[in-house]
Amino acid sequence: MAVSRRGVDVADLVERARAAEPRAVARLISLVENDSPVLREVAAALAPHGGHAQVVGLTGSPGVGKSTSTNALVTTLRAAGKRVGVLAVDPSSPFSGGALLGDRVRMQDHATDEGVFIRSMASRGQLGGLSAAVPQALRVLDAAKCDVVLVETVGVGQAEVEIASLADTTLLVVAPGFGDGIQAAKAGIIEIADIFVVNKADRDGADQVARDLRYMQSLGGRHSDAGAWRPPILKTVAARSEGVDELVAAIEKHRAWMEQHGELGRRRQLRAAAEIEAIALGTVRQKFGDVHGSAALDEAAARVVDGETDPYSAADELVATL
Amino acid sequence: MAVSRRGVDVADLVERARAAEPRAVARLISLVENDSPVLREVAAALAPHGGHAQVVGLTGSPGVGKSTSTNALVTTLRAAGKRVGVLAVDPSSPFSGGALLGDRVRMQDHATDEGVFIRSMASRGQLGGLSAAVPQALRVLDAAKCDVVLVETVGVGQAEVEIASLADTTLLVVAPGFGDGIQAAKAGIIEIADIFVVNKADRDGADQVARDLRYMQSLGGRHSDAGAWRPPILKTVAARSEGVDELVAAIEKHRAWMEQHGELGRRRQLRAAAEIEAIALGTVRQKFGDVHGSAALDEAAARVVDGETDPYSAADELVATL
Repeated sequence: MAVSRRGVDVADLVERARAAEPRAVARLISLVENDSPVLREVAAALAPHGGHAQVVGLTGSPGVGKSTSTNALVTTLRAAGKRVGVLAVDPSSPFSGGALLGDRVRMQDHATDEGVFIRSMASRGQLGGLSAAVPQALRVLDAAKCDVVLVETVGVGQAEVEIASLADTTLLVVAPGFGDGIQAAKAGIIEIADIFVVNKADRDGADQVARDLRYMQSLGGRHSDAGAWRPPILKTVAARSEGVDELVAAIEKHRAWMEQHGELGRRRQLRAAAEIEAIALGTVRQKFGDVHGSAALDEAAARVVDGETDPYSAADELVATL
Repeated sequence: MAVSRRGVDVADLVERARAAEPRAVARLISLVENDSPVLREVAAALAPHGGHAQVVGLTGSPGVGKSTSTNALVTTLRAAGKRVGVLAVDPSSPFSGGALLGDRVRMQDHATDEGVFIRSMASRGQLGGLSAAVPQALRVLDAAKCDVVLVETVGVGQAEVEIASLADTTLLVVAPGFGDGIQAAKAGIIEIADIFVVNKADRDGADQVARDLRYMQSLGGRHSDAGAWRPPILKTVAARSEGVDELVAAIEKHRAWMEQHGELGRRRQLRAAAEIEAIALGTVRQKFGDVHGSAALDEAAARVVDGETDPYSAADELVATL
């Protein structure tokens, strides 16, 4: 087997990842996460081995129980013999990658289970968004034949929308006492959720939260078509695994609905297009940076500062250099 | 004077804006804000007339008194015979532009003063950041010979950093009881502030806030060089205009320091380069969109979904079409 000139045998790693070898999976995620020189080689090697996993995004405000829900989902999915990946994305954290100990402590129930891959990732997106590494890490877990990959994010408006754009199925987790309904409506999250989860449903106010969600859902009106997916509102007590079987059933039902209606393909198509565009823009930005290095952008900026040209004309010249 | 083929006499508008005619200023801002077809023509016509205004950004959490501080600064600057512009940027607001009545109500003290231009703007940035219209609106106010343009934003971490990137001088406004010190440190705001303003300084805890800021400042250590600007920590009660003369003096001192040390030119050069790059990336994105329209990106995305290629190879092909 060919060893890359950088000393990493990518083909061998991918083969071992496909056999679900945890160290190979971890290594590949590190390679894509650190924007390693072999990133493109890894992406090319992974390409033929995707499309199996259902990517399930969990969004919601801090404190509603996203981690507990993730943990309970892993337990239930494992009991059904599914292979499961977990990506915990924290857009505000400067830490990433090697948080292996933290990951194990965090999900101790599953630390010794070879059918579960758990990874924490920071967001390092150049344009303020989620790191480009997140979709690549999803591809690694997909190639490792995970049946479900749970992507959990710290709930901040923009990040939630972005997580949804990565997921086949988006869960919005809310809980009584968090005023989530209104916040969710403000952030447009109601529109992107495929399944609503009212967690901590043993607490006062859970029924009211569910009613609020149903009311806001009715205002949207986009689910009135016959055959359209009508996001269910489920109640759980994730800490005691109550309602989690029903949640797993709803996730499976959503996948079946998507496959039946061509929605899975449509979402993945849009996702791939957005991913390609983001990578291409990054490349262009790098090219501008090279121009910058060669002082052309600096010189253009100086002419704008001196009033000799305007930024739009200067930008046209920059694009013309491509 | 030539009238543009779109029926807008841009050269005449710019000439009238330079004579500080309020309606011409308002019209030009509307043209750049609405991404009008004559945007490029406006930018070109404004280019020779910039560089006069000192752009002062005000950042800080909601409730600390940014609007009150802006209002008090306008009063003091007007009393000194300065022409003043105010841009109130709300990144979360879907409203923009014609909020003339709101603007007048908001700053009633200055509504009939012809030496003050006040404008509210929403952020509509494609990449989640501040609208590209904000720097263009700054150019309009600069051409209208404002001596100082105050840019005020609703305090959210990312927006604060972006406002600072537009400003010659950045004020961080804090107040007792807002826990701002720690939040500011988290968001990296401490690093970008040129002047700290402890507003509501008549309240309990103001001294503690000032001490906290000084302590965090000492941790940074970047101001230890001889000749470096050491951001002052000023106390104000903006609602009673207390401490505002000293604040205006500090703003003027910062400008003098920047001019003396070449920092003003350096900041404006970086700002122009970032602005050119952002416009150029927007153009490229539009070109990708055209490709998308012609189905090339769709077809590439389909090949990624089918595992025939990887997103990096597809992105390379997309960039090659430019």
